[in-house]
Amino acid sequence: MQLEATRVDIGTSRPLVLLNTVDAAELGAHPLDRVRIEHDDGTMTGIVKRTDELVAAGSIGVTEPLHHVRGTVDVTLAGPPRSVRYVRKKLDDIELEADELETIVRDIHENRLSDVELSAYVSAVYTNGLSLEETKHLTEAMSGVGQRLTWETPVVADKHSIGGVAGNCVTPIMVAIVTAAGLTMPKTSSRAVTSPAGTADVMEVLCDVEFTIAEIESIVAETNGCLVWGGGVDLSPVDDEIIRAENPLSVDPPGQLIASVLSKKRSAGSTHVVIDIPYGEGAKVESLVAARELADDFKRVGDHLAVDVSCAITHGTDPIGRGIGPTLEARDVLDVLESEGPESLRLKSLRLAEMLLEHCGVDASSTEILESGQALERFRRIVAAQGGDPEIEATDLEPGAESTTVHAARSGITTRVDNRQLCDLARRAGAPLDSRAGLVIHRTVTEQVEPGDPLYTIHAETPTKLAEAERLADELEPVRVRSKADALVERR
Amino acid sequence: MQLEATRVDIGTSRPLVLLNTVDAAELGAHPLDRVRIEHDDGTMTGIVKRTDELVAAGSIGVTEPLHHVRGTVDVTLAGPPRSVRYVRKKLDDIELEADELETIVRDIHENRLSDVELSAYVSAVYTNGLSLEETKHLTEAMSGVGQRLTWETPVVADKHSIGGVAGNCVTPIMVAIVTAAGLTMPKTSSRAVTSPAGTADVMEVLCDVEFTIAEIESIVAETNGCLVWGGGVDLSPVDDEIIRAENPLSVDPPGQLIASVLSKKRSAGSTHVVIDIPYGEGAKVESLVAARELADDFKRVGDHLAVDVSCAITHGTDPIGRGIGPTLEARDVLDVLESEGPESLRLKSLRLAEMLLEHCGVDASSTEILESGQALERFRRIVAAQGGDPEIEATDLEPGAESTTVHAARSGITTRVDNRQLCDLARRAGAPLDSRAGLVIHRTVTEQVEPGDPLYTIHAETPTKLAEAERLADELEPVRVRSKADALVERR
Repeated sequence: MQLEATRVDIGTSRPLVLLNTVDAAELGAHPLDRVRIEHDDGTMTGIVKRTDELVAAGSIGVTEPLHHVRGTVDVTLAGPPRSVRYVRKKLDDIELEADELETIVRDIHENRLSDVELSAYVSAVYTNGLSLEETKHLTEAMSGVGQRLTWETPVVADKHSIGGVAGNCVTPIMVAIVTAAGLTMPKTSSRAVTSPAGTADVMEVLCDVEFTIAEIESIVAETNGCLVWGGGVDLSPVDDEIIRAENPLSVDPPGQLIASVLSKKRSAGSTHVVIDIPYGEGAKVESLVAARELADDFKRVGDHLAVDVSCAITHGTDPIGRGIGPTLEARDVLDVLESEGPESLRLKSLRLAEMLLEHCGVDASSTEILESGQALERFRRIVAAQGGDPEIEATDLEPGAESTTVHAARSGITTRVDNRQLCDLARRAGAPLDSRAGLVIHRTVTEQVEPGDPLYTIHAETPTKLAEAERLADELEPVRVRSKADALVERR
Repeated sequence: MQLEATRVDIGTSRPLVLLNTVDAAELGAHPLDRVRIEHDDGTMTGIVKRTDELVAAGSIGVTEPLHHVRGTVDVTLAGPPRSVRYVRKKLDDIELEADELETIVRDIHENRLSDVELSAYVSAVYTNGLSLEETKHLTEAMSGVGQRLTWETPVVADKHSIGGVAGNCVTPIMVAIVTAAGLTMPKTSSRAVTSPAGTADVMEVLCDVEFTIAEIESIVAETNGCLVWGGGVDLSPVDDEIIRAENPLSVDPPGQLIASVLSKKRSAGSTHVVIDIPYGEGAKVESLVAARELADDFKRVGDHLAVDVSCAITHGTDPIGRGIGPTLEARDVLDVLESEGPESLRLKSLRLAEMLLEHCGVDASSTEILESGQALERFRRIVAAQGGDPEIEATDLEPGAESTTVHAARSGITTRVDNRQLCDLARRAGAPLDSRAGLVIHRTVTEQVEPGDPLYTIHAETPTKLAEAERLADELEPVRVRSKADALVERR
């Protein structure tokens, strides 16, 4: 069928084609079917949507990935991509071969799967699991697409946290310590997806984080490290697509998690990686046994890829540090580097840095590097290399001026400081987009409190956002106080 | 956030909202997140898409289900609907309760699930299965939405085929026989989704098929039966949504199939139903054991709903009748009613009608009703009641004038007449939209053929469609001929 191509933007990055209902019927094309589009410069495939209004009969609307398709084109029905068969196979709980996983990864990368098919892949992997062999093949396939970084030093240090802990901004401190010890640590980090601040959001308070590969190489040549946004360098990009389908379902199957993390590390050219696995109630991994299994699988897949992996199982039930939100976490980071800072952040950073140094075979004391000021000095050089002000101090960082403090209503012990509720609250206050929005936690878990003691403070940049966060705070109870004497919580 | 609502049609029936990237970021709304829209007449929920172009900052584009939303509206982030938790639970292979299945059905009905979530539901049901209890609850829940028909007679006969067999148009013949025997059989049928002709498409060659409930009641009052399109009466409409996600994955899990079929039967007011379960290579059910299991489950769920179910396990590897496509199948139907017709269609219709009569406790011979002409006479009354010409005869029905016959290239036995390939071919020739397009099969399976014997004829309405079908025929081999002497099929 001959149709006239017109561009449309309907808020998607997939190659969709909009057909008028009349043309779709004539072609026998149902929603989610594929059509082959032959145009002057080649052949493309698009996924069908039908419309009565947006596109007139005789025309075909094409979304962004097909925007180079112009003029009169020949449209015919096409079958589904090969990977749909393999998704179906995984739904049938049959182990996938290396080339089948590679086809799935390629089709996801080239946006060939519809949401229904992508979700079926995620659901199949979640419910039937991935074997160790499959995870290895998937990791290789995922690191086979996108860009690849290479470094001249034989040892390239890296770290990753599987996430879920509020305020857990250990990365800048670790990079400062490890690079000060002479190792290369070119760290690429993400921005927040569902959390109030990713490491990239925190660093952006202090300096630029978006750089080209050439710029990153020059920053690393100058300082041994960097703290940049990974989205700018397209490492293992299939991960982002998979996460898009995992998020609405709140699933994060272990095999897929390992493949996502290690494919990124391999593409980043990392040789020695410490993986932080927080576990406990409300964390991604709920039990110590599950954390150990995950750690072992991380190491096995790492071996297969010749990436040296070491895992730190950590406490994942309550936040690390005092601040939550970009500016407040940046302040904690500087506080630790300058002097004492919040103890939980300081200790976790030291322990993980120590592990990474040892893992890389470097005999240096992270405590000494931190306490002597070498880490701070190195951090300032990185900030300067990334276009920031190296003289900035913790006290220069002001959180949002609109604030409310929530106080204890009774005396007792803090029995729970809830990561998820704190994250929701910080986001409602405006984080990460309003970088000075967020929370300051005044009490950690198992502390004695008296009525009127401050539990946490909400900061926002505008009165509206503060009001919204206050409304949510009334519904939640992120810091729970319980008295042993109180069988009854309240009467109303 | 205050935004100005504007209507958009982007080829979807889901309640989507398009936000400009700037507003989406400000709101913290990711693709597939939900937003609550408070407008003058109430509150609605929409699923987020982001766009740079289609909708300007300060506006919100709303798709059809939200088209009553106008003017300035207040938009805030909302959580996912409750059923997403239950989908996740099913992914975890935990049995769902009646109210949880009901919530899923309601949210699907009200278009509250995104494609990712709907697909996760289908994938979970496919991979973890539904228990008998779950299937019962799901069937009840599905028949609880949409319209409901009621009839005055205590016995209401019905039939359903789970599909996959080309040319299998037994329904009009069965309705003619069963209603001629004095039973009520108000049959609602579907149009083709992935096949070359549904029963509604075939009947539409002879008369109208789209009627209101009142009109259907009057047709049934006059003739004891009808042969109408079910899409006009909205019986168990959730089924259509689920099929939309099942099709791209080519899955049709048994529990879901039972729930879809029996919820429709219950909503149609049927009391006695014969289910046709074709089995064999290439059919939906591949083994006799699986067919028997499915039949038993159909009966158990029927018992639970007080619908009397009886199952016919039939041959599903090769087509029934001679013609494939609306007009060609209508011709076969009239041929059987008028005189002999294709034996496979005649015999299957007789056996199923016999079963249905017996199942309803009626002592009548379907062969006698057919051979005496009573069935033909009754069929003509139904055609007349549905606005068609009762005098129409098989010989009045001409297939598309553009045609090609494919001949045997060697001598041997027909070892396979492939349903799926024949369907693809008939669709490529234009069926069901071009009602006179389709195929005539000249050889059934296990017949002796000589070189040059006709195997099948393709009919199309236009030369272009015929050429397209010919091209596909060159790739396929829907009627396979094999000689015992030929170890080698061909050398090239």
